[in-house]
Amino acid sequence: MPTKTAADGFVERVELSGHIIDSLLLPKVLDHITAAGGRFEIEQITVGQAQRDPSFAVIAVHAPSADRLQQILADIADHGAVPVDSQDARLVAADIAGAFPEGFYSTTNQRTEVRLAGRWIEVQDQEMDCGVLIESSRHTPCAVDQDGTSSRQTPSAVMDGTSSRQTPSAVMDGTRSVPTTMTARCAAMTDVKIGQTYVVGHAGVRVRPEERQAKSHGFEFMNSPVSTEKPKGVAIRQIALELLRTRREGGKALLVGGPAIVHTGSVEHVSRLLRGGYIHRLFAGNALATHDIEQALFGTSLGVRLDSGDIIEAGHEHHLRAINRIRRLGGIRRAVETGELKSGIMHECVKHNVEFLLAGSIRDDGPLPEVITDTLVAQAKMREQIRDVTFCLMVATTLHSIAVGNLLPAWVKVVCVDINPSTVIKLADRGSFQTVGLVTDVEPFFRALVADVELLAGSTK
Amino acid sequence: MPTKTAADGFVERVELSGHIIDSLLLPKVLDHITAAGGRFEIEQITVGQAQRDPSFAVIAVHAPSADRLQQILADIADHGAVPVDSQDARLVAADIAGAFPEGFYSTTNQRTEVRLAGRWIEVQDQEMDCGVLIESSRHTPCAVDQDGTSSRQTPSAVMDGTSSRQTPSAVMDGTRSVPTTMTARCAAMTDVKIGQTYVVGHAGVRVRPEERQAKSHGFEFMNSPVSTEKPKGVAIRQIALELLRTRREGGKALLVGGPAIVHTGSVEHVSRLLRGGYIHRLFAGNALATHDIEQALFGTSLGVRLDSGDIIEAGHEHHLRAINRIRRLGGIRRAVETGELKSGIMHECVKHNVEFLLAGSIRDDGPLPEVITDTLVAQAKMREQIRDVTFCLMVATTLHSIAVGNLLPAWVKVVCVDINPSTVIKLADRGSFQTVGLVTDVEPFFRALVADVELLAGSTK
Amino acid sequence: MPTKTAADGFVERVELSGHIIDSLLLPKVLDHITAAGGRFEIEQITVGQAQRDPSFAVIAVHAPSADRLQQILADIADHGAVPVDSQDARLVAADIAGAFPEGFYSTTNQRTEVRLAGRWIEVQDQEMDCGVLIESSRHTPCAVDQDGTSSRQTPSAVMDGTSSRQTPSAVMDGTRSVPTTMTARCAAMTDVKIGQTYVVGHAGVRVRPEERQAKSHGFEFMNSPVSTEKPKGVAIRQIALELLRTRREGGKALLVGGPAIVHTGSVEHVSRLLRGGYIHRLFAGNALATHDIEQALFGTSLGVRLDSGDIIEAGHEHHLRAINRIRRLGGIRRAVETGELKSGIMHECVKHNVEFLLAGSIRDDGPLPEVITDTLVAQAKMREQIRDVTFCLMVATTLHSIAVGNLLPAWVKVVCVDINPSTVIKLADRGSFQTVGLVTDVEPFFRALVADVELLAGSTK
Amino acid sequence: MPTKTAADGFVERVELSGHIIDSLLLPKVLDHITAAGGRFEIEQITVGQAQRDPSFAVIAVHAPSADRLQQILADIADHGAVPVDSQDARLVAADIAGAFPEGFYSTTNQRTEVRLAGRWIEVQDQEMDCGVLIESSRHTPCAVDQDGTSSRQTPSAVMDGTSSRQTPSAVMDGTRSVPTTMTARCAAMTDVKIGQTYVVGHAGVRVRPEERQAKSHGFEFMNSPVSTEKPKGVAIRQIALELLRTRREGGKALLVGGPAIVHTGSVEHVSRLLRGGYIHRLFAGNALATHDIEQALFGTSLGVRLDSGDIIEAGHEHHLRAINRIRRLGGIRRAVETGELKSGIMHECVKHNVEFLLAGSIRDDGPLPEVITDTLVAQAKMREQIRDVTFCLMVATTLHSIAVGNLLPAWVKVVCVDINPSTVIKLADRGSFQTVGLVTDVEPFFRALVADVELLAGSTK
Repeated sequence: MPTKTAADGFVERVELSGHIIDSLLLPKVLDHITAAGGRFEIEQITVGQAQRDPSFAVIAVHAPSADRLQQILADIADHGAVPVDSQDARLVAADIAGAFPEGFYSTTNQRTEVRLAGRWIEVQDQEMDCGVLIESSRHTPCAVDQDGTSSRQTPSAVMDGTSSRQTPSAVMDGTRSVPTTMTARCAAMTDVKIGQTYVVGHAGVRVRPEERQAKSHGFEFMNSPVSTEKPKGVAIRQIALELLRTRREGGKALLVGGPAIVHTGSVEHVSRLLRGGYIHRLFAGNALATHDIEQALFGTSLGVRLDSGDIIEAGHEHHLRAINRIRRLGGIRRAVETGELKSGIMHECVKHNVEFLLAGSIRDDGPLPEVITDTLVAQAKMREQIRDVTFCLMVATTLHSIAVGNLLPAWVKVVCVDINPSTVIKLADRGSFQTVGLVTDVEPFFRALVADVELLAGSTK
Repeated sequence: MPTKTAADGFVERVELSGHIIDSLLLPKVLDHITAAGGRFEIEQITVGQAQRDPSFAVIAVHAPSADRLQQILADIADHGAVPVDSQDARLVAADIAGAFPEGFYSTTNQRTEVRLAGRWIEVQDQEMDCGVLIESSRHTPCAVDQDGTSSRQTPSAVMDGTSSRQTPSAVMDGTRSVPTTMTARCAAMTDVKIGQTYVVGHAGVRVRPEERQAKSHGFEFMNSPVSTEKPKGVAIRQIALELLRTRREGGKALLVGGPAIVHTGSVEHVSRLLRGGYIHRLFAGNALATHDIEQALFGTSLGVRLDSGDIIEAGHEHHLRAINRIRRLGGIRRAVETGELKSGIMHECVKHNVEFLLAGSIRDDGPLPEVITDTLVAQAKMREQIRDVTFCLMVATTLHSIAVGNLLPAWVKVVCVDINPSTVIKLADRGSFQTVGLVTDVEPFFRALVADVELLAGSTK
Repeated sequence: MPTKTAADGFVERVELSGHIIDSLLLPKVLDHITAAGGRFEIEQITVGQAQRDPSFAVIAVHAPSADRLQQILADIADHGAVPVDSQDARLVAADIAGAFPEGFYSTTNQRTEVRLAGRWIEVQDQEMDCGVLIESSRHTPCAVDQDGTSSRQTPSAVMDGTSSRQTPSAVMDGTRSVPTTMTARCAAMTDVKIGQTYVVGHAGVRVRPEERQAKSHGFEFMNSPVSTEKPKGVAIRQIALELLRTRREGGKALLVGGPAIVHTGSVEHVSRLLRGGYIHRLFAGNALATHDIEQALFGTSLGVRLDSGDIIEAGHEHHLRAINRIRRLGGIRRAVETGELKSGIMHECVKHNVEFLLAGSIRDDGPLPEVITDTLVAQAKMREQIRDVTFCLMVATTLHSIAVGNLLPAWVKVVCVDINPSTVIKLADRGSFQTVGLVTDVEPFFRALVADVELLAGSTK
Repeated sequence: MPTKTAADGFVERVELSGHIIDSLLLPKVLDHITAAGGRFEIEQITVGQAQRDPSFAVIAVHAPSADRLQQILADIADHGAVPVDSQDARLVAADIAGAFPEGFYSTTNQRTEVRLAGRWIEVQDQEMDCGVLIESSRHTPCAVDQDGTSSRQTPSAVMDGTSSRQTPSAVMDGTRSVPTTMTARCAAMTDVKIGQTYVVGHAGVRVRPEERQAKSHGFEFMNSPVSTEKPKGVAIRQIALELLRTRREGGKALLVGGPAIVHTGSVEHVSRLLRGGYIHRLFAGNALATHDIEQALFGTSLGVRLDSGDIIEAGHEHHLRAINRIRRLGGIRRAVETGELKSGIMHECVKHNVEFLLAGSIRDDGPLPEVITDTLVAQAKMREQIRDVTFCLMVATTLHSIAVGNLLPAWVKVVCVDINPSTVIKLADRGSFQTVGLVTDVEPFFRALVADVELLAGSTK
């Protein structure tokens, strides 16, 4: 259908598909349009019958000015509304290192595609709050889907966007009419180099929001992340099943953990999961590793005996002596290799080749030699290590959980466990909507989880 | 030693014994004296060597006026400071029903003795925020005495400092020289009847504060009630041991519980404790019983399926239909007897003769027939039923926990479990200092507790 | 359009109107249908353009059996889906006092209508978790809307308790063919009397769910009730505006408050609101009144001096002495009249004819003479007093807030203020969806509220 | 008195002075002795009369072995128990860079002195969890107190790392008999260089614990940091007085703040404090600065309009665009200087020469150019900037509050404000006992604080 000429000005027709009613996409999109001063007509709507069946709508978006229309289209694009008649993404070269061009397209954590030369290319390394870096690579062709309805165009770096300070130039490789292989990937602000090409604006970008989990899915009830009055056994069993499935299918499970794991007496539980091959990465800070090692060396955590609950005299020094000992030995790995460190979470990680990443913070004592004290370096390493993570269990750490939540794409399942509802709320507030929250206590949680995992592993043998 | 005549006026010597340094009694008493404008001399001090050894101090309290001195003595009496040269308690007849005489002695939850006719009598039914009712136990309530600073009347009770009701002593009934047997017990304000005799002022009253738990006791570390970062396994094991000890020694364990026990999926855990004979009383409200019965009848709690976590359509009506069903059947006991109610906490209580007391609140739906809707009647019944309770486990209910905390004497061990630190804090704030708080999640707590209890019971057989 | 005969069995067409997309009604209804094993066709859909414009849908509901169809229709009726071709409500006589007939229609807190003799009658005294009592009254005709599409029928009281659509049978009053005036109102379970007529099942009942607040409404952002990281000044200003509007328009504002109002030092703030005529009812418990009076008599709250924050020696007795004093005087009103009680919230209530209702709980000391200790009596009085309430401010009390939340119809605006997110969450969890939650601290909240109210009142003069 | 030779072995007499009863030092010390298997005799005790008067005790500590005795003396030394007959501190040279010698003395945050050559020298830069670095400096003599009872000895740097009381050996500079000027200061583990001299063991170290705040001090009631039911107006007024006093006396007030300051709408309040000269340092993270700048540039915080509470379309991108803009401009200072950044907390800091320190964390977006991404560098800069801080207000940030709490000496007054009790608890749990906690909401807190500060400033003019 051709675009209608409307009395009130500017019109663009967009499509929306998926569980648009169930997942609130349609109401959100309509809401955005009117809230931003636009108007809509629903030209076509088909509502999926079953839970699995997608729905589909075609909406004519009207706005009083071209600018307003662009703003509206940009807004609703994040919710998956794609113009029926699309155009290529606008590309601008970075003029300053470490900063995007003005008007850069700011990514979500949802699957995203950009249109280049009429083709939709999936953005790699999806991560929220990044820019989309476009690179040409002759030698490593990437999978490019074809868009049937569009004309074939060469990507053109639009330089008139007022945001640039150089002369308009041509396509990245300079050979304008030669179709090259293009890739798109998320890049962090600090990694921007002068001359790199970034997507600007929302045109030619489409987002495919992750479908909400089906209603009857067991995790679903936990989506109200803050209620503590829910059946916990069911939730824990499902997390156990998830760990088993991950191991069976060769996925990677990441544990992001805080020191309360040690303080509450959960070291042995986590050690069993590590030995059992249920956890494949550990992200933590200096505190978890320190108290774990303190326990291994002194039997205490923050000076509290973990076998009796007693407070040890001068025990508050133990964590510092533990750090000092490990620093003298040259690091955690060396301490394990030399036999000084004989038990605990860090010991199991070394013994079972579970990669661990200890990120520094300003409240660290010491820190341990393996701690990465530069936060940008730590972020970069975390980015690398989450690439193949398929399940993430965050326990009792707000800082690390939010950091990881910022890096993970929306389709990785995340379970966040904390006794403090505010941590879970903070994660949800920050847009990690795929996060399932469980407000419960760390030690009993791990105790029950290990029991379930081992029971289920036995029964499925 | 004789009382010194001091230049600055009025003096009284008091004794303080027990763990007065360890338990902070001495600093508190000294603090009270100076804060209230008095002055002290420590005439004698002996500090116990071992944890168990009591300390002892004799303190001369100076004050600029007789009134001030009385006020100070009254203040420090609650901390166990007893005048070396004591006088009898002052008794006044109640002039109004349902209210104490002005200046009544307001009780603590600590062991208390009153001096009558030179003898110290232990106060029965110790409970905080009550008056001390003095009765002569011939057959009739004692006659009324006048309040006067001077009238020399004979209340003469047990002289040897031991708790006893034996020796006949004098006189509430006006027959001055006839020795009668006197008793003292706590009485609630609403139970005051005209003509009853109550203690007024602090003279002749001494309090024997419960000793703080020794430092090395495993529960001790939980005394900071709000930290969630403590080893939980140890705490749970100790509660398990307490339940076993209570059963072995023929004590009575009281469970005070809220509906989150059901919502979190802990019904089967609690049922096992009931069947195992570890719990001998249940205090709860309409909500716990209702959701327990809802689960037995419909498999849901507040409309959430407890086996799958799914939300059932129209399930929010289940609790109301459960109440209605039980009301139609004539009550919980009838529902069990007729075979309509086949499982759950209430079912186990009826089957295993565990007394349950359901107290009403203004937020109740229904309520169930067994619910006592008058709060004063409920309090009275609670008072009766706690008399022989030796261990109390409070789980996930602020209202009932505080209500029971108000009634229990200080020497009954109380463990308060809630995922919300504020509940535990509220209990501690209100003076139930014997309360041990555990901030943890209900279902995993009960799951671990039952496992520990059954393991330990097996191993001790 | 006539009902289609479908291959897969039973069909009924329902209408849904209002903000059905925006408010999630449509997705919910479709979800219910498929979740319960049915199937739907959207025969017609019109989506409102502007925020205010309602949408409208006609949905054909298919089910494999008549029973299943009835179940589905019952489920979706609570979300406002009304059969296009409707039938009268089924009526059954109560056979047991204090319990509804089995299968009774369980009310929501939304506007509800029942169809009797072809006419839709609005249910009075709307309250959740009640039954719908049908009464005939010749003398007091109530407003009855006519349903144009339906035939005129006599309401049929089905006395046998079985489902039937047969011939209309005898009306309650026995005079069969004489059309009488019928009324419908919510009745609590405990108030059921033998022989009264109640609605059974969902047929002939339609619910008109309250519209969600428009997105741009200032209160809207607070609908995520648990986040503490929201601009607070805006929220407080809007509550101030609501109080001003209520007073201006002659509405009734109800304050439901807990003792933290006194402990945090907010007595003077609340007193100003009372004196200013901004609060017209007070629901509280013994604790708020006691500590308010304690402050008036002794200058302390729970023994803490409110002007200095100091802890007073023996101050913990003050609350008990306050209660005793008032009991001796014969009550709060008498204490004000005799000049003994000279300030505070209760004093202002008496002086300014603000009705107060003190409901008892099992944790009460005393209680004060005005406290209603029977919870059913208290509920009944609360029901009476909320009839004309148009705005409700709940502060720092979980028990009373939930109790009032249970009684209020959905269209009364409620603001719930508590420093503890769990209280706000509990209210939201229990279906009081009209509740706006504000997680903030009591005293600074009231301080800012009073400042705003007085500023705005001045500026609008 | 001479040291007694006891039947059970080894004895050392220690002195304890200060508010040893009131502040629980005496019970703690006695407790440590017996818990560690020792025995004590109180040889002398004097209890101070008034609040201000110090008490004094001489205690003979007995232990069955020399090692045990040393352990006990080490434990109680942290509570201020000083051997009557003292010896010099043991010094050991660092053998590894970045780690202390084994057995290093681990510092507290209390005033500490070390004995070198018979003289007690105060340790500079007091900070917990550090080592004590001893340096000789001929040119900059430091204040050295003389210890009357001790003989003059040369400090002995024991280089072999073994415990020894042998012959005095070479002083650091090698010039044995020449008395040099020695200094002692806290050094962090990472700053250890090979060859530096550190104190090992507890001998020759004495701690002078900060006195607990007097009971009648208004802040005192807040020492139970978690209760939310306390009069807040009093607490806020006292913080206001503290800010005024700090400014008047030329002290330095440090604000440690989290982004909730911006989210809750407190930017203008904090700006007034900055403009008024009440805050002299700001420690924060990328988030506070980012959202502050987001508000200045876009009027939103995390995409929420702060003037209306509305959620802005695409507003979630604002914080990233704000960071990008500032990076493009070259930093916050440049943005202020060029007039791009016209308001907000960061703007006021630049305008009023308030030093700000932004420390990085792994959850940062961007970050802003001024953010110090290496946590060790950030810690080092924080150390420098807190040297002259006399009052510290921590608001709504756990990470930064704990980091600063770790660095501050015990005598700097700290007020920690958070709506979440767990943050305040965490600070208290970690030994920052000088911390006064206030559980309240950020915006109303600042609103009231500014009002009080401005009122009080006006009234004292």
